[in-house]
Amino acid sequence: MDDRALLDGIRMIVGEKETTDDCSVLAVGDRFLVMTTDMLHEMTDFPAGMTDHEIGWMAAAVTLSDIASMGAEPADLLMAVGLDRPERLAGITDGAADCCRSVGARLAGGDIDRHTELTIVSTAIGFVAGDRILRRSGARPGDLVCVTGLPGAAEAGLKGDPRFWKNLITPIPRVREGIAFAEGGATAMMDLSDGIVLSLYDLSRASGVGFSLDPALFPRIPGMPDPEATDLFLYGGGDFELIATIPEDRFPIPGVDATVIGVVTTEMAILSGGHPVPPRGYAHRWE
Amino acid sequence: MDDRALLDGIRMIVGEKETTDDCSVLAVGDRFLVMTTDMLHEMTDFPAGMTDHEIGWMAAAVTLSDIASMGAEPADLLMAVGLDRPERLAGITDGAADCCRSVGARLAGGDIDRHTELTIVSTAIGFVAGDRILRRSGARPGDLVCVTGLPGAAEAGLKGDPRFWKNLITPIPRVREGIAFAEGGATAMMDLSDGIVLSLYDLSRASGVGFSLDPALFPRIPGMPDPEATDLFLYGGGDFELIATIPEDRFPIPGVDATVIGVVTTEMAILSGGHPVPPRGYAHRWE
Repeated sequence: MDDRALLDGIRMIVGEKETTDDCSVLAVGDRFLVMTTDMLHEMTDFPAGMTDHEIGWMAAAVTLSDIASMGAEPADLLMAVGLDRPERLAGITDGAADCCRSVGARLAGGDIDRHTELTIVSTAIGFVAGDRILRRSGARPGDLVCVTGLPGAAEAGLKGDPRFWKNLITPIPRVREGIAFAEGGATAMMDLSDGIVLSLYDLSRASGVGFSLDPALFPRIPGMPDPEATDLFLYGGGDFELIATIPEDRFPIPGVDATVIGVVTTEMAILSGGHPVPPRGYAHRWE
Repeated sequence: MDDRALLDGIRMIVGEKETTDDCSVLAVGDRFLVMTTDMLHEMTDFPAGMTDHEIGWMAAAVTLSDIASMGAEPADLLMAVGLDRPERLAGITDGAADCCRSVGARLAGGDIDRHTELTIVSTAIGFVAGDRILRRSGARPGDLVCVTGLPGAAEAGLKGDPRFWKNLITPIPRVREGIAFAEGGATAMMDLSDGIVLSLYDLSRASGVGFSLDPALFPRIPGMPDPEATDLFLYGGGDFELIATIPEDRFPIPGVDATVIGVVTTEMAILSGGHPVPPRGYAHRWE
């Protein structure tokens, strides 16, 4: 059973609408407050060799990326830290505070605890105007599909390519790009933390559409041969880039470096080069 | 080094004001948004014998209690769950949702992960009118000190008294009482999760005042002899009741069952029956 199957099981309790997007959504005046939480721990989420500062940065970045994926501006972030050694707290806190500052947010507090394995849960809130919020459910047939950055780079870093180590351990939350997509007329958006294909399956389910990707358009890891380069692009996790759908006449978004990789289709299938792609990628899995 | 010493160390990074109260505070229009996060895990926070539903309830209650302690009304709660066994998720989620509903809040989403030890982090937000927020810093000499409920009951339950097992495992967030204190003119408030004495040390530091308690006023566990009853009242943890200071002419608060246990003094000392009480109680401790 993987995370997505488990989540299906609790939709009855929490509500379908509440578990579809990267963030929960609450109307506050004429804006929406968006909120998200992520649990990370040392053995499965932090590659060996990271400093405490980098660990703190990454723990903040993963939730700030979720805020960005709704087209929202992040405000406050709280961090609960279960420490294996107390002396790690200062570096971790410092890294999280730096990541927050880099996107105009504030590390506003948290909780500390001890734990046999370093465990960090960061929770962030942000705000977005009522008519600007981007959900997973708005994609329409004919829209272009585009991505920021170089998906696959983080996994290339994990596999040992030193050029992409930084992509892996200090991801940049795409807050500026997310807001630009929202203002520029994008119809649906999410972040790529689990890889492009799993993200497309989520968007497909939420929007009731399919996707047809053109491999000739994929940005590639320089110097990497196929099929590895294409596989990494489609299935690599940990990039925290954005994937968005947008009407053709609204692309490109001024000031945003995004690559078109395909189109939204009517039939609920995920195709690459005309062939169906399986729903695999990075996902926690229960044996 | 205990939690409070560690927190002192990161005040430089996060900010003094941000680490003083039970919640972080963000101005949103003419209201304040308050936000708090708590990490709990099985070995240290959930007494043996609790059901998954009770565990979920408690994980939600501890943060909703922090929201209550600011005089705020809780809105949304997110729960990150690190599961040792996936089949526990439904019961835990159900318990958290029930606790949220009991105080008019919403379990709005969360994150799941696997973990060798069950670990739950709940994060809640709430709102309070700008002139109603209750911080730890507002206590003034001459104010009365009062508490809700029967502090010490949760620890009596932990020690095996079956009459108080429920106090321990399904604490009731004092949301209604917190709002009534805020509307009724209380000057400072916090919750009692770490026991009365540690809470008074926190209030003393934040407000620049002291406290003089009168043991003759303490509510007692029925049938328990002294000094155990007094000790449990002063130092017992896990009750999630509220402690508040309030001008004498504003007490009692209509509809709130609170007990006066002493007064706020000018000198920064914590006295009970005229004798200083040491700063001990429930606190995580690093050896």
